[in-house]
Amino acid sequence: MPVYLAERKRVIDEALRHYLPPGTKKPQALHEAIRHSLFAGGKRMRPILCLAACEAVGGDYAPALPLACAVECIHTYSLIHDDLPAMDNDDWRRGKPTLHKIYGEAIAILAGDALLAEAFAIACRYGGGRYGPGVVVGELARASGSRALVGGQVADLEAEGREISVRELRAIHLRKTGALITTALRLGAMAGEASRESLRAVTEFGRSLGLAFQVIDDILDVTQTRETLGKSAGKDLAAVKATYPRLLGLDGARLAARRYTARAHGALAPLGEKGTILANLAGHLLSRES
Amino acid sequence: MPVYLAERKRVIDEALRHYLPPGTKKPQALHEAIRHSLFAGGKRMRPILCLAACEAVGGDYAPALPLACAVECIHTYSLIHDDLPAMDNDDWRRGKPTLHKIYGEAIAILAGDALLAEAFAIACRYGGGRYGPGVVVGELARASGSRALVGGQVADLEAEGREISVRELRAIHLRKTGALITTALRLGAMAGEASRESLRAVTEFGRSLGLAFQVIDDILDVTQTRETLGKSAGKDLAAVKATYPRLLGLDGARLAARRYTARAHGALAPLGEKGTILANLAGHLLSRES
Repeated sequence: MPVYLAERKRVIDEALRHYLPPGTKKPQALHEAIRHSLFAGGKRMRPILCLAACEAVGGDYAPALPLACAVECIHTYSLIHDDLPAMDNDDWRRGKPTLHKIYGEAIAILAGDALLAEAFAIACRYGGGRYGPGVVVGELARASGSRALVGGQVADLEAEGREISVRELRAIHLRKTGALITTALRLGAMAGEASRESLRAVTEFGRSLGLAFQVIDDILDVTQTRETLGKSAGKDLAAVKATYPRLLGLDGARLAARRYTARAHGALAPLGEKGTILANLAGHLLSRES
Repeated sequence: MPVYLAERKRVIDEALRHYLPPGTKKPQALHEAIRHSLFAGGKRMRPILCLAACEAVGGDYAPALPLACAVECIHTYSLIHDDLPAMDNDDWRRGKPTLHKIYGEAIAILAGDALLAEAFAIACRYGGGRYGPGVVVGELARASGSRALVGGQVADLEAEGREISVRELRAIHLRKTGALITTALRLGAMAGEASRESLRAVTEFGRSLGLAFQVIDDILDVTQTRETLGKSAGKDLAAVKATYPRLLGLDGARLAARRYTARAHGALAPLGEKGTILANLAGHLLSRES
């Protein structure tokens, strides 16, 4: 798995470098800031899942590459904006100062904006097949919009300092984290010309994987320190933020993580042997639990 | 012209209402904020130009409607973010308080983000023809990205309080205002299955129209009051912002506006009789000069 992940990360990084304007392009501060965020040590989880889903339905991963990179741009933009003083007000991300701490708020907002727009420019390089570019890019846009990614972030901010139910928390996570993970997988499967049945399987896998991932993220925020985590730890608790450990206790949260993980693995059955790659990735991603 | 404009505005407003999630959808503050900005009295200049360009190359405007609405969403998002405290820090827009004054900074940033994403969801409703959705939506994305719209805003911020040449100012305007106006026209022409020659004519028209429009905007900022303008007047001068009147004097700026206007009209020649609608629109838009 480590060799596979490193190889895929290399392919994605190279494609991102190729698709995006160089850091020397004017306005230089903007292009530097974009590259700084995009190459700040992200694990490329979403684009790797995208390429893997393409293969899991029987395709070669090449047609999925622009879609994988587009998803990573959108993920990166959402981190930049989430860290802003007006939002989560976070000074650290992946062990480094957040973008607005280095370049100032204006450039951080605009670098996020530009990454979101460039994501669609990159996604439009997808040539289409059984699922045309309008369908595929349209799905990516909806996953990034007010009903999914952005809607989830707003709901998350609104829930701060308020009592919410596990059901509400799940609804927030499905949009804030789950939608983009699921979409990464679905886009990959579509680029691989997935059958309706395979697409359904990949979708269910994504939803459960996304929830498991978020629960584990919440658990790590409680159990780990900033050094291990690379971002400000204990921040969720400090901000009276609704999390699984807060609502279910640490053991209850661990149980939930195991349940979602099992559901993710179960969803892969219709893909048969080819689904193994996604199962291995899920195993690797979710083993962060402690 | 007033009847034509009112009728087109009605068609566009209706389509926008149809394409976007209702204001009652959760998270409600986000969807309310989006609708508040989008229906805050914008003149719909860009989408009207988009539909007109579609007709000017011989098409029926219907296929251009999602593209026109997408452009308006992008224009609206850019206004919301430009007004933020970290950017132009403007409290007034179209005679009303800016979005962050009403809903706070977090919602204003996120409403802008959502509008940008939704713009691409709407644009992907374009069915395609001679120019496929990948080409058309990709062009819209590039016009909104780091090399055009966002790049222009960064260059504009960087120019504040610094001496710049007319040439630099023109380069800023071409990206900050010109790119989206030109793209609105080009997208409309593509939806109308424009020939290469017509598309070139529409592009040249857009560039000159965009420059003329911006010069006139700069002039109005000097000569008019907030009541007439609906936004904070004299702000450009107060912020030591590079403008045409500052670099060329008021008379020089008026001359530049007339020159760009003439060039816009000249560009329409290849369209023949059908280009009249664009000429009339240019005449109307640019008659704000005083």
